[in-house]
Amino acid sequence: MTPTGDLFHVYDTTLRDGAQQEGLTLSVADKLAVARHIDGLGVGFIEGGWPGANPRDTEFFRRARAELHLEHARLAAFGATRRAGLAAADDPLVAALRDSGAGVVTLVAKSHDRHVELALRTTLAENLAMVRDTVSHLRAEGQRVFLDAEHFFDGYRDNRDYALEVLRTAFEAGAEVAALCDTNGGMLPGWVGDVVHDVVETTGVRVGIHCHNDTGCAVANTLAAVDAGATHVQGTLNGYGERTGNADLVTVVANLELKLDRQVLPPGLLAEATRVAHAVAEVTNVPPASRQPYVGTSAFAHKAGLHASAIKVDPDLYQHMDPAGVGNDMRLLVSDMAGRASIELKGRELGFELGPELVQRVTGRVKELESRGWTFEAADASFELLLLEEVEGTRPSYVEVESWRVITETRVAADALSEATVKLRAGGARIVVTGEGNGPVNALDSALRQAISQLYPEIVKFELIDYKVRILDQGHGTDAITRVLIETTDGQGSWVTVGVGPNVIEASWHALIDGLTFGLRRHDA
Amino acid sequence: MTPTGDLFHVYDTTLRDGAQQEGLTLSVADKLAVARHIDGLGVGFIEGGWPGANPRDTEFFRRARAELHLEHARLAAFGATRRAGLAAADDPLVAALRDSGAGVVTLVAKSHDRHVELALRTTLAENLAMVRDTVSHLRAEGQRVFLDAEHFFDGYRDNRDYALEVLRTAFEAGAEVAALCDTNGGMLPGWVGDVVHDVVETTGVRVGIHCHNDTGCAVANTLAAVDAGATHVQGTLNGYGERTGNADLVTVVANLELKLDRQVLPPGLLAEATRVAHAVAEVTNVPPASRQPYVGTSAFAHKAGLHASAIKVDPDLYQHMDPAGVGNDMRLLVSDMAGRASIELKGRELGFELGPELVQRVTGRVKELESRGWTFEAADASFELLLLEEVEGTRPSYVEVESWRVITETRVAADALSEATVKLRAGGARIVVTGEGNGPVNALDSALRQAISQLYPEIVKFELIDYKVRILDQGHGTDAITRVLIETTDGQGSWVTVGVGPNVIEASWHALIDGLTFGLRRHDA
Repeated sequence: MTPTGDLFHVYDTTLRDGAQQEGLTLSVADKLAVARHIDGLGVGFIEGGWPGANPRDTEFFRRARAELHLEHARLAAFGATRRAGLAAADDPLVAALRDSGAGVVTLVAKSHDRHVELALRTTLAENLAMVRDTVSHLRAEGQRVFLDAEHFFDGYRDNRDYALEVLRTAFEAGAEVAALCDTNGGMLPGWVGDVVHDVVETTGVRVGIHCHNDTGCAVANTLAAVDAGATHVQGTLNGYGERTGNADLVTVVANLELKLDRQVLPPGLLAEATRVAHAVAEVTNVPPASRQPYVGTSAFAHKAGLHASAIKVDPDLYQHMDPAGVGNDMRLLVSDMAGRASIELKGRELGFELGPELVQRVTGRVKELESRGWTFEAADASFELLLLEEVEGTRPSYVEVESWRVITETRVAADALSEATVKLRAGGARIVVTGEGNGPVNALDSALRQAISQLYPEIVKFELIDYKVRILDQGHGTDAITRVLIETTDGQGSWVTVGVGPNVIEASWHALIDGLTFGLRRHDA
Repeated sequence: MTPTGDLFHVYDTTLRDGAQQEGLTLSVADKLAVARHIDGLGVGFIEGGWPGANPRDTEFFRRARAELHLEHARLAAFGATRRAGLAAADDPLVAALRDSGAGVVTLVAKSHDRHVELALRTTLAENLAMVRDTVSHLRAEGQRVFLDAEHFFDGYRDNRDYALEVLRTAFEAGAEVAALCDTNGGMLPGWVGDVVHDVVETTGVRVGIHCHNDTGCAVANTLAAVDAGATHVQGTLNGYGERTGNADLVTVVANLELKLDRQVLPPGLLAEATRVAHAVAEVTNVPPASRQPYVGTSAFAHKAGLHASAIKVDPDLYQHMDPAGVGNDMRLLVSDMAGRASIELKGRELGFELGPELVQRVTGRVKELESRGWTFEAADASFELLLLEEVEGTRPSYVEVESWRVITETRVAADALSEATVKLRAGGARIVVTGEGNGPVNALDSALRQAISQLYPEIVKFELIDYKVRILDQGHGTDAITRVLIETTDGQGSWVTVGVGPNVIEASWHALIDGLTFGLRRHDA
């Protein structure tokens, strides 16, 4: 446990509320992997799901008991108060919470009178009894209990007395924190601050905050609550969540530590934020948002020519903090707006001192290629090959390609199969090979490797770890320009190459060949 | 001009500061198209770029004079104060601002002493003279002048007197508003509010606000400034901009109008927001963020089974506002978490009253397919075909496919060409056709249309307008599962179909056939 864990709760709900996001589906293995990554950030609590309500979450808690060894965080099980008219001890869903093995139960309770009557269809008095009984029962069974006061802010506005009564009831029964939820996400910071202030003053209970981003203010609302006395913040990695998402927990924590001087994670762990946020995105398969505060790949990237020239003078003039504090990097983008100063700096990053004439020539080629859809911002390896071509007068090359062909075919009720034939010259010999694959690019990759693996045995270590396709001029159907980015690894490092063209297979071929060339040159050097 | 235009400025800088975003490149034609779309939202000002500083922006203003007829907005030209040691009248960049034809010039000026000395490399006094001279000169030439006080908040912290002196100097020379810029984006709402309050109280100048999202607080910072007296807000469509982006202008305006009761656009135009935001995203080719506040496709979508059942009772229980206010829709997602209530509602949306047994069967099939990577959230047409199959006992079908094959090949220095052969039975005859295309899917589409255009002449009207490819399990290189979404139109409506598989061409084929089937059935019905 972190020493700060009990004075200030950093509470992650990626696995429960974050998983409500459209398009996001996590298997039990995914959830275990995400929990391990988030633990690496040093949060105090990880809400794992709702045991008993769906088989996947039940299974998650079962496997977590045996397989999940968290260094910093405690697991929390999320669930509802007992059903109306049933004793807490007799409710199987409450029993599932008690038996999850998490040790912390986060109980969601209605605190908005209209929701009690219309959605829960019970009386205001019975709802209070449900809160009291469930909390008491779980406390008696040795659980720590946190309360999620659902729709609290809307409820407070409609019936302040009842909303506060729900909190008091839970605390009298033994709850230790009440997270006030802006469930529909319609609040603004001033309102949140006022309500939290009133709750703290009036009831004296320990207050937490749970915000959604429907007004674009989830982070600011969370900070406003902390400023007004909340000592428990809920959020999700990468701001995942239903509709517009939850408060981005990394942004909240970075603001608290770096801007407001409140140490809320174990010292030093905030520097893991970029790594953890991207690792989680790998598991969820939701492409990371490049513009994400603090951890986005663009968060410290500079494009404008104006700025790039000033950055040469003093990096601090143009960044609000040192990106190393969150484990991110300052990057310079190669782009037609960046102008010559950026190309020069970028060349230096790669170990080349470029003279003015060469800078101008490279800038011209980058501009021309980018106008046709290429991008070098995300494809440093392709940029380096282009630079080498200009510096050395010839592009590094290990094979001379004569032709290639891919056939993809299917018959009724059979899976399609792809077959690629590549004809090339390498090491003085003409080589013709055919490779198969379950897709055309896969087949091409297989043929290419077979063709040169005898000559360059190191390519056995190369592996394609990412393949991204983007249609550039959407709105033109299948006739559009395609951009392919391929990431290749040799087990030690990885590099990204780009290919562009109207034919997705040809664009992929370009990126494949460049990926191979870059890797072979690295091993040569 | 809008009646509210001069009391409160809604100032769009998508075309200038937004265009600094990584990966975003706009041609002159793109910029004209974006300006027309943004005008449809009723903003007061559209900053078009920096004439004189780059040929594209010069050309934009030249063409705008002849081709751009704005109903609501005025164009503004962005540029810098005169160079040190040169008379404003002799500076060609200042002349380009005067001659742009925009009528409003937004002058960026340094207000942070360190930036004057280190980046601009001139004296504090000369910087003030540059502000004074440039504003006076442009005023004398009949221009309205707004000031962008760059790095104002950092400057205020380091040297408040100088920062305020820059504003006073500009106003004495005739500037009408000073937009305080959080250029590095490190501010939080409380700080912004305090500084704006002090500036308004101390100097009496008209204050504007320009925020970046580096702390995830661009919107909240903007609102804090307005609360403290700012009457001019800058932002960009979809929050485009360098690093983490600028304040999302639509979110700012929606919060002001819907949450804070300030009418800042012409009445009724906020309802265009979703349409305009997506239209701009089409032009910029930056995929819209589904979680974007107010206008995102997920912004009012409900996934959790818990909520979907409550929504049947009363939609207002689970949304913070009526989505129609910003031209968006409440959608229900078909997903394994949504459960049976959602399937039932979705069926009703499509005109089917599903009995409990059918609901269970469809739910089961959706779950099973989604576990293999299919998605029906974005592919309503495929969901409807699946529903029809369950309701009618057989899937609608217009052709019986025997086999298909695509060959893509290239030779040295020639563009790749794709050729598809399709064998099928339709209308009682066996048909074998070959189509060509500049990509494999394009070739398949062409062959398929040729095969049945005599039998179903209405397909001449069908057009593929969007083709999206997503690699589902990134991290597996080219061997991954691929999901293809295809949008087809018949000129009157459009529909989306999905295909999934390890072979991108086979996945595309599924989506193509379903798109055709759905369209033909629509014309039948």
